[in-house]
Amino acid sequence: MKKHVVGIDIGGTKLATVVADTAGNILNKVRKPTLAERGPEYARQLLFDMVHETIELAGLERTAISAIGVSCGGPLDTKTGIVYSPPNLPGWDALPLKSQLESEFEIPVTIENDANASALAEYRFGGGRGYNAVLYMTMSTGIGGGIVLDGQVYHGANDSAGEVGHQILLPDGPLCGCGKRGCLEALCSGPAIARRAQAAVRNEKASATTLLDLAGGHIESVRSEHVLEAARQGDALALRLVEETAYYMGWGIANLVNILNPDIVLLGTIAIAAGDLLLNPIRKTVSEFAMTRPAEAVKIAPAQLGEALGDLAAVALVV
Amino acid sequence: MKKHVVGIDIGGTKLATVVADTAGNILNKVRKPTLAERGPEYARQLLFDMVHETIELAGLERTAISAIGVSCGGPLDTKTGIVYSPPNLPGWDALPLKSQLESEFEIPVTIENDANASALAEYRFGGGRGYNAVLYMTMSTGIGGGIVLDGQVYHGANDSAGEVGHQILLPDGPLCGCGKRGCLEALCSGPAIARRAQAAVRNEKASATTLLDLAGGHIESVRSEHVLEAARQGDALALRLVEETAYYMGWGIANLVNILNPDIVLLGTIAIAAGDLLLNPIRKTVSEFAMTRPAEAVKIAPAQLGEALGDLAAVALVV
Repeated sequence: MKKHVVGIDIGGTKLATVVADTAGNILNKVRKPTLAERGPEYARQLLFDMVHETIELAGLERTAISAIGVSCGGPLDTKTGIVYSPPNLPGWDALPLKSQLESEFEIPVTIENDANASALAEYRFGGGRGYNAVLYMTMSTGIGGGIVLDGQVYHGANDSAGEVGHQILLPDGPLCGCGKRGCLEALCSGPAIARRAQAAVRNEKASATTLLDLAGGHIESVRSEHVLEAARQGDALALRLVEETAYYMGWGIANLVNILNPDIVLLGTIAIAAGDLLLNPIRKTVSEFAMTRPAEAVKIAPAQLGEALGDLAAVALVV
Repeated sequence: MKKHVVGIDIGGTKLATVVADTAGNILNKVRKPTLAERGPEYARQLLFDMVHETIELAGLERTAISAIGVSCGGPLDTKTGIVYSPPNLPGWDALPLKSQLESEFEIPVTIENDANASALAEYRFGGGRGYNAVLYMTMSTGIGGGIVLDGQVYHGANDSAGEVGHQILLPDGPLCGCGKRGCLEALCSGPAIARRAQAAVRNEKASATTLLDLAGGHIESVRSEHVLEAARQGDALALRLVEETAYYMGWGIANLVNILNPDIVLLGTIAIAAGDLLLNPIRKTVSEFAMTRPAEAVKIAPAQLGEALGDLAAVALVV
């Protein structure tokens, strides 16, 4: 029996390939910048080289690899393995990545969007272990989501399920990257928190000294990290921004709790960095806004895999 | 092989028992008022008598029945078969209905909340046939929902999934029966449409003659049926109320489309009565508010089973 797999994590800024054993232990890793501006042909060739290199570094033959898992920004079709114009990968239009990889390596390939793959990794190796209904939500440059039910990624009709960041809360709210207004993502992603913070600093300069100091004195440099840092120092304006973020996140999660009745909601990136400072007011809003029974059933916790998530996301698809 | 099943439909105003064959053909039916005010012991004894009577009417022995399906207002626990205080069944507190029925009839019993059972019936016999991801939404005195994935009711962590009517759209909006504000149900259920219509008539008496006439001249008698009827006659105020209803429904459904990526959303009761008058503006709002890929994948259609839904809901659980 073949005991090793390859994982490929494709991001807008970096590519990573790993070899892992079937228990999910990463044996080695190759990491290179994507240089997305050079287009898909460059990235494809680079990926091929990296996969060959990773297998070689592991001291294995290609024939010892049972499967390749690919975690990539969507939209993409998991059945055909075609990638459709991810926002962070310009030029990847209808790219048949699965068949290209299978031709090159003669190894079966499973491809999944990164949020779904991350959700599966948390289910297999992280905070979702042992739960039947797991909702994972990123909270970084965007708000993505993945739903794992009974150990399987839930894909929906055309691999678009789990777009939890694009539920609309305020139809007249701030513009979202998706073109609509007032999506959860437009209120609570890292850049959205920064935008709200910058507006608050502009409007309330007198109470914004801590935030401004942390951002080197430049309003336009205020980021979500500064908001968390200032809130930890007890800064009133920053604490209000955190409360506001928790209110919108809690509202959105309450809706998801009513609809999906998950056992656990795992929140990534910003929520991990913020910890209970953000999670506690989120939990409070969820318990106020969701129905009693599903609210009692759900745990809201930080995702657990941290830095290892990207690699394990790809690996989780094939172990 | 046993070729017949019993279905029990428990509502706040009526009880119905049917015998059906395993293809879902109803052979006969007994129907009685629930008289909910007499409490669960009365209803339980009445149900037992009705089941015996239905089986006898079908000319069958009890031993010829393979299973009993029960569709009942929730919350309830599908594993233990215990019913927990449905709003329309006062006194049904922790009622062990499944075990009571199994003791009496020595036939396996499956119990499910009515929205989930209805969703399954639409999947088996109605508008959801052939689809992998089916979302059914009632639109009557409340807005309930059921999710059927790959032919199975999706229950979530504790049988609370599919509370789609309690996603909150307007946290400062009208009070909902659940105690929160601005749930989809508080905006678009029959009583909610009536409330909005009555307020509009009160505020705009001059343009409300059609609605008032249909309601016999009494503002407090205006109901959702009158709104639909007046809209069909081209009445401007009623058309605005329908548009408003479609806007909130479309917004809520768009969120569900982004999260669940269903193949089809089937809308019951009011949506069936209204048809394209309501469904077309709902479809328009969904296509504006949902992400392109899931919006392209989803059909939004009236539920198909109409009057037969309650009986088939119970039967669908066991065929």
